[in-house]
Amino acid sequence: MRNLKLVIEYDGTNYCGWQVQAHNKCKSSIQETLEKALKRILRKKIKLIGSGRTDSGVHGRGQVANFKTDSGIAPEKLQKALNAVLPDDISVIKTEETGADFHSRFSAKSKVYRYTILNRPSRPAILRGAVHFCSYPLDLKLMRKEARVLLGRHDFKSFCASGSNTKETIRTIKRITIRKLPYNLSPITHNLNEFPLILIDIEADGFLYNMVRNIVGTLIEIGRGRFFRGSLEKILLSGNRKLAGPTVPAKGLCLLKVRY
Amino acid sequence: MRNLKLVIEYDGTNYCGWQVQAHNKCKSSIQETLEKALKRILRKKIKLIGSGRTDSGVHGRGQVANFKTDSGIAPEKLQKALNAVLPDDISVIKTEETGADFHSRFSAKSKVYRYTILNRPSRPAILRGAVHFCSYPLDLKLMRKEARVLLGRHDFKSFCASGSNTKETIRTIKRITIRKLPYNLSPITHNLNEFPLILIDIEADGFLYNMVRNIVGTLIEIGRGRFFRGSLEKILLSGNRKLAGPTVPAKGLCLLKVRY
Repeated sequence: MRNLKLVIEYDGTNYCGWQVQAHNKCKSSIQETLEKALKRILRKKIKLIGSGRTDSGVHGRGQVANFKTDSGIAPEKLQKALNAVLPDDISVIKTEETGADFHSRFSAKSKVYRYTILNRPSRPAILRGAVHFCSYPLDLKLMRKEARVLLGRHDFKSFCASGSNTKETIRTIKRITIRKLPYNLSPITHNLNEFPLILIDIEADGFLYNMVRNIVGTLIEIGRGRFFRGSLEKILLSGNRKLAGPTVPAKGLCLLKVRY
Repeated sequence: MRNLKLVIEYDGTNYCGWQVQAHNKCKSSIQETLEKALKRILRKKIKLIGSGRTDSGVHGRGQVANFKTDSGIAPEKLQKALNAVLPDDISVIKTEETGADFHSRFSAKSKVYRYTILNRPSRPAILRGAVHFCSYPLDLKLMRKEARVLLGRHDFKSFCASGSNTKETIRTIKRITIRKLPYNLSPITHNLNEFPLILIDIEADGFLYNMVRNIVGTLIEIGRGRFFRGSLEKILLSGNRKLAGPTVPAKGLCLLKVRY
């Protein structure tokens, strides 16, 4: 049996998430949409293994999945066939044969999520499905400084959705970067205030349910001055979800990359 | 009468363009949608003057419009009210009172349009409504070199849609830049091939109907090696639309800025 690996980009707006979720059965999942497309091409039922779930409305730019098959189809040919039958909000951006032991979920060393904020007085029109809108000014320097306490191995229980069944809440955050949209993307003459996107990238060995969205919600409270300096550390040490900021919307979140 | 100036961002996907167009009456225009919102707030019929038309499906990040009113409403208040009643694909990003002589169209010194290309083997999922997909490799250096002949004052008849009524086809292109998506927007570890957006920005004192889309279509033919070196100059001098490349789709085009 061959083991094929896919890298997938998707706009999560119209899906219940990567996997079917008990509380949201009215929309289809990314996984089942891909499995249907694979079945249509390979004429056999395929069990697709994703690197992990993304929640309803969350986007993917580098989701990874693998499956076993006895088909002899060339990876490039499969990718073209998939992109021809998949809906236009899902695109397979890489397809390759991988070792028999490769497992999208268990082989993953870390994941990178990005949260995108539009920080200006007026709501977005063009990027409305992919950013979270914050009209109040945010102090990025302070947010960066506070975020440092999250680096390393910690119990992230305070940032885990209260309904989650996860017992093991210790994770290792490897990096957090908080940046403004760079100069080069702006019009020929540059004005930093014209398109002020803030990108928050978090890399960790794993994430708890809603962890990125709860961390970003807390960082925003700090950036706008509603939480005091040092509060992030207090919240982290407390293990109390109720002390953290609100869960920011799914549409600002994107799974950027899975590292192996 | 006060003269109020608006800067408007819009996702043009669901509109027939800035103005109602004879051949596309089934969708509403951005202008009439804004006029309806203004009427609702100011309780008077408003005649909105735009800097110029954008075509069906073309986006705007810095469209400018102005109107005369005897209302005493504060510009910030008007902007908030407009964004509360406008559909979510139109957003007013700036509102200010301007001199009585200001006219969005006649006072404009130049406009900047951006055309965005996704240049990778697989089609876009996330940005599918705002980019033109090119799967073949493009030689950007060659495109930049060739594009130089367009700079300055020329007769751009070769790049004007054949159905256009425009008699005066001389325009001045002030700048053309062709760039790849910058480093900073990529994930924490950078791989230029992962999200290869190409941005083509063109600034001119005015544009003919479909001029940007025809120039970009021609530049793509050059970049992929279907037109020879020097062909852009020949096409420009010929005045013959048939020699130029195809008109690229509207969804990749965006009016970035109007200069006064």
